[in-house]
Amino acid sequence: MSSQELRVGMVGYAFMGAAHSQAWRTVNRVFDLPARASMVAVCGRDEAKVAAAAARLGWAEAVTDWRELIARDDIDVIDVCTPGDSHAEIAIAALEAGKHVLCEKPLANTVDEARAMVAAAAKARAAGVRSACGFNYRRVPAVSLMHNLIAAGRIGAVRHVRAVYLQDWITDPQFPLVWRLQKEKAGSGALGDIGAHIIDLTQFVTGQRITGVTGLTETFIKERPLVSDSSGLSASAGHATGEVTVDDAALFIARLDGGAVATYEASRFATGRKNALRVEVNGENGSLAFDLERLNELEFYDATRPAAEQGWSRILVTEGEHPYLGAWWPPGHIIGYEHSFTHEMRDFIEAVATGADPTPSFEDALQVQLVLDAVARSDASWVSVAT
Amino acid sequence: MSSQELRVGMVGYAFMGAAHSQAWRTVNRVFDLPARASMVAVCGRDEAKVAAAAARLGWAEAVTDWRELIARDDIDVIDVCTPGDSHAEIAIAALEAGKHVLCEKPLANTVDEARAMVAAAAKARAAGVRSACGFNYRRVPAVSLMHNLIAAGRIGAVRHVRAVYLQDWITDPQFPLVWRLQKEKAGSGALGDIGAHIIDLTQFVTGQRITGVTGLTETFIKERPLVSDSSGLSASAGHATGEVTVDDAALFIARLDGGAVATYEASRFATGRKNALRVEVNGENGSLAFDLERLNELEFYDATRPAAEQGWSRILVTEGEHPYLGAWWPPGHIIGYEHSFTHEMRDFIEAVATGADPTPSFEDALQVQLVLDAVARSDASWVSVAT
Amino acid sequence: MSSQELRVGMVGYAFMGAAHSQAWRTVNRVFDLPARASMVAVCGRDEAKVAAAAARLGWAEAVTDWRELIARDDIDVIDVCTPGDSHAEIAIAALEAGKHVLCEKPLANTVDEARAMVAAAAKARAAGVRSACGFNYRRVPAVSLMHNLIAAGRIGAVRHVRAVYLQDWITDPQFPLVWRLQKEKAGSGALGDIGAHIIDLTQFVTGQRITGVTGLTETFIKERPLVSDSSGLSASAGHATGEVTVDDAALFIARLDGGAVATYEASRFATGRKNALRVEVNGENGSLAFDLERLNELEFYDATRPAAEQGWSRILVTEGEHPYLGAWWPPGHIIGYEHSFTHEMRDFIEAVATGADPTPSFEDALQVQLVLDAVARSDASWVSVAT
Amino acid sequence: MSSQELRVGMVGYAFMGAAHSQAWRTVNRVFDLPARASMVAVCGRDEAKVAAAAARLGWAEAVTDWRELIARDDIDVIDVCTPGDSHAEIAIAALEAGKHVLCEKPLANTVDEARAMVAAAAKARAAGVRSACGFNYRRVPAVSLMHNLIAAGRIGAVRHVRAVYLQDWITDPQFPLVWRLQKEKAGSGALGDIGAHIIDLTQFVTGQRITGVTGLTETFIKERPLVSDSSGLSASAGHATGEVTVDDAALFIARLDGGAVATYEASRFATGRKNALRVEVNGENGSLAFDLERLNELEFYDATRPAAEQGWSRILVTEGEHPYLGAWWPPGHIIGYEHSFTHEMRDFIEAVATGADPTPSFEDALQVQLVLDAVARSDASWVSVAT
Repeated sequence: MSSQELRVGMVGYAFMGAAHSQAWRTVNRVFDLPARASMVAVCGRDEAKVAAAAARLGWAEAVTDWRELIARDDIDVIDVCTPGDSHAEIAIAALEAGKHVLCEKPLANTVDEARAMVAAAAKARAAGVRSACGFNYRRVPAVSLMHNLIAAGRIGAVRHVRAVYLQDWITDPQFPLVWRLQKEKAGSGALGDIGAHIIDLTQFVTGQRITGVTGLTETFIKERPLVSDSSGLSASAGHATGEVTVDDAALFIARLDGGAVATYEASRFATGRKNALRVEVNGENGSLAFDLERLNELEFYDATRPAAEQGWSRILVTEGEHPYLGAWWPPGHIIGYEHSFTHEMRDFIEAVATGADPTPSFEDALQVQLVLDAVARSDASWVSVAT
Repeated sequence: MSSQELRVGMVGYAFMGAAHSQAWRTVNRVFDLPARASMVAVCGRDEAKVAAAAARLGWAEAVTDWRELIARDDIDVIDVCTPGDSHAEIAIAALEAGKHVLCEKPLANTVDEARAMVAAAAKARAAGVRSACGFNYRRVPAVSLMHNLIAAGRIGAVRHVRAVYLQDWITDPQFPLVWRLQKEKAGSGALGDIGAHIIDLTQFVTGQRITGVTGLTETFIKERPLVSDSSGLSASAGHATGEVTVDDAALFIARLDGGAVATYEASRFATGRKNALRVEVNGENGSLAFDLERLNELEFYDATRPAAEQGWSRILVTEGEHPYLGAWWPPGHIIGYEHSFTHEMRDFIEAVATGADPTPSFEDALQVQLVLDAVARSDASWVSVAT
Repeated sequence: MSSQELRVGMVGYAFMGAAHSQAWRTVNRVFDLPARASMVAVCGRDEAKVAAAAARLGWAEAVTDWRELIARDDIDVIDVCTPGDSHAEIAIAALEAGKHVLCEKPLANTVDEARAMVAAAAKARAAGVRSACGFNYRRVPAVSLMHNLIAAGRIGAVRHVRAVYLQDWITDPQFPLVWRLQKEKAGSGALGDIGAHIIDLTQFVTGQRITGVTGLTETFIKERPLVSDSSGLSASAGHATGEVTVDDAALFIARLDGGAVATYEASRFATGRKNALRVEVNGENGSLAFDLERLNELEFYDATRPAAEQGWSRILVTEGEHPYLGAWWPPGHIIGYEHSFTHEMRDFIEAVATGADPTPSFEDALQVQLVLDAVARSDASWVSVAT
Repeated sequence: MSSQELRVGMVGYAFMGAAHSQAWRTVNRVFDLPARASMVAVCGRDEAKVAAAAARLGWAEAVTDWRELIARDDIDVIDVCTPGDSHAEIAIAALEAGKHVLCEKPLANTVDEARAMVAAAAKARAAGVRSACGFNYRRVPAVSLMHNLIAAGRIGAVRHVRAVYLQDWITDPQFPLVWRLQKEKAGSGALGDIGAHIIDLTQFVTGQRITGVTGLTETFIKERPLVSDSSGLSASAGHATGEVTVDDAALFIARLDGGAVATYEASRFATGRKNALRVEVNGENGSLAFDLERLNELEFYDATRPAAEQGWSRILVTEGEHPYLGAWWPPGHIIGYEHSFTHEMRDFIEAVATGADPTPSFEDALQVQLVLDAVARSDASWVSVAT
């Protein structure tokens, strides 16, 4: 095992913090890497809770001020797992302090914040300080394979993209007004939370960027019970109610710079769809399809095969030949959601340890933000059906 | 068997004509109905070909002028299976001559033609002359079941509709310029041909109408080899080329009058998707999904079941309890595409014989036309992604 | 259309009779064949019922004595659709009278009867009189494709076969004692009715014959309500009860003469499986899988493809390149259960009209009977688990 | 977090050792338990390799003699991850030394060894020393849910079980003669390695025990290249060849003590099936089906629902209501193969810490061994098909 150490401090310890911790604990147990991550400290505002989280999640220390974390000499990496409204402040401060930064997605709540982060990242990069945004689904082996097959020309020019990210965790009108439903904390609703994932993922696998959009956003339930205390996705209902200030669903059509056309839909109201990130790409010579609820599989249609044998192949992406999987279990033994983070840390550690820029960059993440912004503005473009 | 006879004359004998003929031949062999269809004559312009088609498809006579067909006393029903550019003329003339009319979809190539047809149908209706448009997929048992479950409130208020109709029969740039790729014959491309089906089907199953749209249309291959002779979907390539004047793909977002939001996509460039009409509807209390390539199945998510047992149920729609299926085979024995036409004729015969109006009406079909028109106009509404 | 006529007389008009009638009516409408079937007469014991069936199903005449049918000069083909106990008598008499015979499966209720039928068929064959047994599933396009791919060596030597035919139509103990549950009428239960299908189908697709077996049969419900009148699969419950004298389920292991090993299971008690004939074949270089509930699909695993791209391909068997399908609808438009009979009649007509022997022969069907017999005898071979 | 500590020593560090290590590292990070596992030492014969494994997998110490491990005072639990030929010796010695024992499956290579282990476990149990056998698939949440639904009577009396465990990792004749292909090391081939899993799993979920069997075993490739060094499932080919002394595939039919009949198949030659442990159970009132390649899903057919709505429900077993999953991620976020071991450790720790007997017991595991033995003996029971 490598003797080089990357000392990590993490800010935030809810859902994302737990997922990142599992990855930091596991990554060097599975992958041979040029550096070893050590889990130095976790930061949260509530002293008792963050101490409990540190013990539970495996962090050596707990602190309550992220500025303190950034000021320490014994930390090389700041891992930002807080809600989007604090990303810019923490990430920029960390980069300026010479810390490598891994920032959860979406990069920020506004385009302006994202632009400031990009500027900070560019400046830091010149000094050898690295940054990346945590679009972890790029590291699902099947998504990585999808990217590789398209990049290798296996389906030819891409014509169609159709992407949905469907959940149903707030269909109940009594589900409370957690931070993810408040614009000032979360920036947007389904659009930024899960829509951002499919924007990044489809741009990643196709190698094309979205240039224009038209669509809509919708808030089905406009008032919800307040919560006194809530973290992450779970919450217990309170008594008074408050306004939902983000979208429940966002739907849009897009054109990509390589000539493809696309449909996108992000919703938290798709009853029965729990975590259905589904992406299909149709090319001149073939097609690919992925579903996060079956993340160990990739469907591949190869239109260059003999006509009578053409079909959608369900590739079980669990072989040593597949991305990341040589380090895990024998063929056919599936992995889970959390492995995408372990792979993210694997690639981040490798890049930082070898002096390379990890991906996706803050620039990549800004481009996602610009698309989100265009979708929000497109609400006005509407054609009525005549009667 | 009933002694009442419905004497049918059919115009057109290509793909749709063959499908309708199979249905007219079969319908009284399977269903107990108040009237019996007799296949009196088929009409086409080429004398030799229409004679061969009559013999092959089971029509007693062949004629070459549809006006002659309409003029005959021994014909009660005119079944219009021609390309869209002749629908209005034939259907209006037939209605005026007191013939019941079954007209293939889309109702017409333009809104103006469709409005004229509606006027003719309304006038005829007052005289007991019936008319319907052949959106045959309403008669797929699983689609009918989907409609019934939504109408019965099993999924509550509908929130989301997502519908695609994906084919790939013209991805080859050498595929020739058949009539379906010419605006003057076909009106539009994927939009009117297959997009019309998903517009009608989703409005039918949800009971909601589309009020506004925004989207795009795209023609990927703008020039194709000419054909001297081609009918239906198949054609052999010629030498010179001509302009493709219809869309290869149409994508749009819609709002429905019951509060639902929707995405639609129709394409002939979705490599590997042969006849993938897929519709999913999410409601407050459940969801339903259908795929024409597996038309004997309906997926149903019932969110009122115990939490630990909720899941997407694959209902094999082949039981006596399911729409239309009591007349066919024992449970588990699947039916095919052509059966949707047999069911269409079944319902048409029953309505006409009992003096009722068959569905979908010309008015229903006009509304589809209005949506197609709005989509075509929406191409302009576009928001650029900032850089 | 051909001027040669094959004049058909059918014995029996229940479930199988209806399915055969649909096929006889349709076959020349879809396929170009050297002869044209004409539906001369149907035979049944109840005069009123058979007359109604003739009118409904499209037979020109109805008769009540099969001997009369065989004696007529204006009939070329006898189609035997009765329960198994009368197959031998009718088929042998017909062959001796110089009629071509198409006999439903299983060929007979006993090995002795089947041997007598084979002798009669051999004798008739020498005089140009043809015979075949109606294992219709050989004519499902996906099954035919499966056969062709194995015969072409696409999966190499076959190692494993696993076949089930699962239904659930008698799980209710109140379902009455129809003829299919009586040994004297049906010969056996699930074993001969549906087990026969998977024995024939697997031997057909692999080109290997079963040489030895070990297994069991089971009757879960041993007493059932009597029915005064019942035909086919449906029946209404009576009051008194009688003994079920056939198996509800049969399970066996087999060795095939090409070195493959196999598992078989036929059951009418597999709750939720309506018509689940599923066959998987694993070879050295690939595998194939089929499911009758999705009969338009064939799954193909090609182990000679690049390792990272290997997967189970779902071939939608609806293309012009696929067996039988050039005559039907455009790509992606699925067919149903009944089409297997239309294809059976297609192949039978072609063989008879061109003086060839149709398949499967009575000899092929006898071999199935011999396997059924061995399974019934294997019940005794049992090893107790020590305690 | 609990202050009670369970100090673990593990013997073996190949595939199973790595999987167990991942589970020991993770279990207290995810679950609230009455004791905390500490990874004291790992044992292997090769000093350098075991030291590297300890560092990689997270064990504080590495030792080369398992007797030394057992002799230490600072170890409470011995986790046996070696090949089957050493299970009995290590486990019995550990139990006699007062150590709790978790032993990988199959319990032993022979019935005699298994009986001796049961005797040792019974004696130890009287002294409060615990033991369990590592049939980890019982701890897959979907399998646990399957067990719970059957135990709750949701499908009524069980009629049918069909279970396969299909892999294809040795279809290549050049794959070398690793220890898993040698009888003296592995006891048997597919039968004991993967067949044991489906025997245990089906007995677990149904609550019924196998009382009799008939079947066969087969070795397709009888000679393979030798390997000088090989561990686990992977190996590099050598030059000389040796005899394969275990089965490549085992197929059998069984009767269970509750009246169910069953088919079982275990094979390493099912091309395209990587880790296809599939179990279906049909009961009077419903059915359940599971596939390890999609281990986050359970299929449930509830025959008590309205007839027109019955179908196979795909339950995504990722909700807080499902076994084990409240401690992991939000709904819809899938877990992997390795989580079954984390759950196994969870249940083992809880049982040991609270003075209860963990399951499955050595007695349960002996019963599996007795079935394996009966299958091996049943090879002789064979009925030839007459000619």
